[in-house]
Amino acid sequence: MLYEHLSVSPEGHLLMDGADTVLLAQEFGTPLYVLSEDRVRENCRKYTEAFRRYLPEGSRPLYAGKALCFRGIYPVIESEGFGADVVSAGEIYTALSAGFPAEKLVFHGSNKTDAEISFGLDNRVGTFVVDNFAELDALSAEAEKRGVVQDILLRVTVGLDPHTLEAINTGKVDSQFGTPIETGAALRILRRALSKKSLNVLGYHSHIGSMIFDPQPFLDQIDRLLAFSAEGYRATGYAPAVLNLGGGFGVPYIASDPKVDIGGNIQKISEHLAAGLERYGLPPVRILMEPGRSIVADAGLTLYTAGGLKTIEGYRSYVTVDGGMTDNPRYALYRSSYTVLSAARLNEAADFKCTLAGRCCESGDRIAENILLPRPVRGDLLAVLTTGAYNYSMASNYNRIPRAALVMLSGGQPRLAVKRETFRDLIARE
Amino acid sequence: MLYEHLSVSPEGHLLMDGADTVLLAQEFGTPLYVLSEDRVRENCRKYTEAFRRYLPEGSRPLYAGKALCFRGIYPVIESEGFGADVVSAGEIYTALSAGFPAEKLVFHGSNKTDAEISFGLDNRVGTFVVDNFAELDALSAEAEKRGVVQDILLRVTVGLDPHTLEAINTGKVDSQFGTPIETGAALRILRRALSKKSLNVLGYHSHIGSMIFDPQPFLDQIDRLLAFSAEGYRATGYAPAVLNLGGGFGVPYIASDPKVDIGGNIQKISEHLAAGLERYGLPPVRILMEPGRSIVADAGLTLYTAGGLKTIEGYRSYVTVDGGMTDNPRYALYRSSYTVLSAARLNEAADFKCTLAGRCCESGDRIAENILLPRPVRGDLLAVLTTGAYNYSMASNYNRIPRAALVMLSGGQPRLAVKRETFRDLIARE
Repeated sequence: MLYEHLSVSPEGHLLMDGADTVLLAQEFGTPLYVLSEDRVRENCRKYTEAFRRYLPEGSRPLYAGKALCFRGIYPVIESEGFGADVVSAGEIYTALSAGFPAEKLVFHGSNKTDAEISFGLDNRVGTFVVDNFAELDALSAEAEKRGVVQDILLRVTVGLDPHTLEAINTGKVDSQFGTPIETGAALRILRRALSKKSLNVLGYHSHIGSMIFDPQPFLDQIDRLLAFSAEGYRATGYAPAVLNLGGGFGVPYIASDPKVDIGGNIQKISEHLAAGLERYGLPPVRILMEPGRSIVADAGLTLYTAGGLKTIEGYRSYVTVDGGMTDNPRYALYRSSYTVLSAARLNEAADFKCTLAGRCCESGDRIAENILLPRPVRGDLLAVLTTGAYNYSMASNYNRIPRAALVMLSGGQPRLAVKRETFRDLIARE
Repeated sequence: MLYEHLSVSPEGHLLMDGADTVLLAQEFGTPLYVLSEDRVRENCRKYTEAFRRYLPEGSRPLYAGKALCFRGIYPVIESEGFGADVVSAGEIYTALSAGFPAEKLVFHGSNKTDAEISFGLDNRVGTFVVDNFAELDALSAEAEKRGVVQDILLRVTVGLDPHTLEAINTGKVDSQFGTPIETGAALRILRRALSKKSLNVLGYHSHIGSMIFDPQPFLDQIDRLLAFSAEGYRATGYAPAVLNLGGGFGVPYIASDPKVDIGGNIQKISEHLAAGLERYGLPPVRILMEPGRSIVADAGLTLYTAGGLKTIEGYRSYVTVDGGMTDNPRYALYRSSYTVLSAARLNEAADFKCTLAGRCCESGDRIAENILLPRPVRGDLLAVLTTGAYNYSMASNYNRIPRAALVMLSGGQPRLAVKRETFRDLIARE
């Protein structure tokens, strides 16, 4: 099994935290997202333990809700000592509606609207991550109007290419995110931010991309951030109290993917940081990181019912499922790879090569190509692993498919955390 | 202007059917989908007039709802004499809830679930398009149980490559859709369908792809369908009464895209068909076609508010908007091109080159690259043209962005056809 929280029952059923996925599908229907709360907590603890061990007091991991945002996730990550990275008023609303403390929210986004800036201020969001000059001016004006001093981080672009996928690579100079160091714009926005009485600059944020397996890009990122911190210090006398390194650790989707040693990476980051601060003569900084995928991806799987097998002699075999790009658009968007299991037939040999197609009327609707399963038949239960991140959060109603339910397992006990969408829901706003 | 229903007011505002988009944005907010009912009707009439002129009595265009499915569209296309192509129980539900007659529905989909087959039968959907053997058996069993004889078309794969984008190319032999002619499977499914007492085989369906500008692929498709019809006739004595040619005509998204002469193409199809039927000694057939994009794409545009301009010296300039891949994932999925206008500044020179980025925290969130606008400032109203198809229907809540409202213009008069999603809607199922 790809992950320790998955196992096989004597009759060949896939178990998650001991819960039988065949029974879950019977009780809740398919397609069904299943999320292991225990695994989410384990993943959180890799961060919190390493943070406690290696990083200065006041450092904190923030859960990046864009990976999987629903009310039920916030009490879990709060009780694990996480803050939360939010990227829209909708995410703020979701977190607050679940009782998450506003002061632990860090508000991201390359284009916060005026309404969102007001929403964030009125709800006393702890920290704004200011992306650009226009936002800086809009935020400071609104904060001043309210007579508050708002804590901010400045998002800078360090000009690194971590060699990940184009669509999730955010650290390059040529990016819609943040203010670039290389062109001198970051220093200019620092000066302007320091001149605003209604803003308190805590430090800098940078995010270099997603699905990074190697610590080196993060160490390079720290070098650039510290060099910029030193430059800013020389130019303005301001030294950051906080560095937010963003997210980005990868997770294995298939057996051949590498595994990331989160604790080991954080240790390396800590050592590199300490040496760099000393080299530049900078005061200590608190560290924030923003894991999303590495918290929830492997904690989730999706259960589908197979519609049937189509073998095109001389070409290949397709097995279709009752979901697809509507609940998981990652193949359509990024040609992502997945591990697929025949959830009720794990005692049988998986020796039939096929392509898993979704049910939308679109050739690009696939989940995985050239996977091995026991020869599928209509009605088979199929499990696609590692769907905890960027599945429910990216789901659509394309082809007018109601969005799937999400069941959360706590100690192996299921509870319906997101109800299945109904036909009536589909037309509710029309 | 790219289309005749768009014009410019004296003060430089973009007008659609004479309605000022600046006022629409003020009244309904942004992002906002705007759809011209008049243009939808004009587009419909290109088909209905050509059908009347060139094709046998009983031929009919069907609106492919997957392009844009919401309740308000169905009365429009029904009054234009269209049937409807539906691809899920959700689309059937939407059409029926808008009063569309069930007998004019043609039910597609490569993986109709058992529940959907029952839903379609119980709601007396006119025609099922049977994709594969498993579905044929499931449908005939359910029809038999109900004591009904269900009209069906058999979806066959003709083995053509219309040289369109991989993700929307559905006619190749190696496809998850339909039953291939080349391998002999189509003849086998015909024999099996004819043996089912609860099914009445009306004829064949094939769909070769989307965004096709040239009539030739459709003529090739007809050749293959007629050759197969003749083969089936020789083998079984069955000749089709209906051929459904699917959809696929392209529309111009940017000025350099070709325009399709719908009527001229249908005339060519008609002539080619008549000659082919005669050549093969086959009886006359009624023709169905399933336009979606060519009915609604150019009737729609999206209004956004610009968040600001970010110029990265030596690289490029980004302008961000208050929407993006959440309301229009076509760039993220297919790298589609769009025409973008500064909707309140059309009297100014559009000489500033920039890239239009969405507001999601993802580098891939773009709408258009290297477009020309008057130098954008925060608050500018931007219009992205040709968003009537595959925008609202593919929208998501990624980054927890509420889905946009849709305003329909009838004779230039706006009415809210789809309400904007609220934060409360976002958590309603959680």
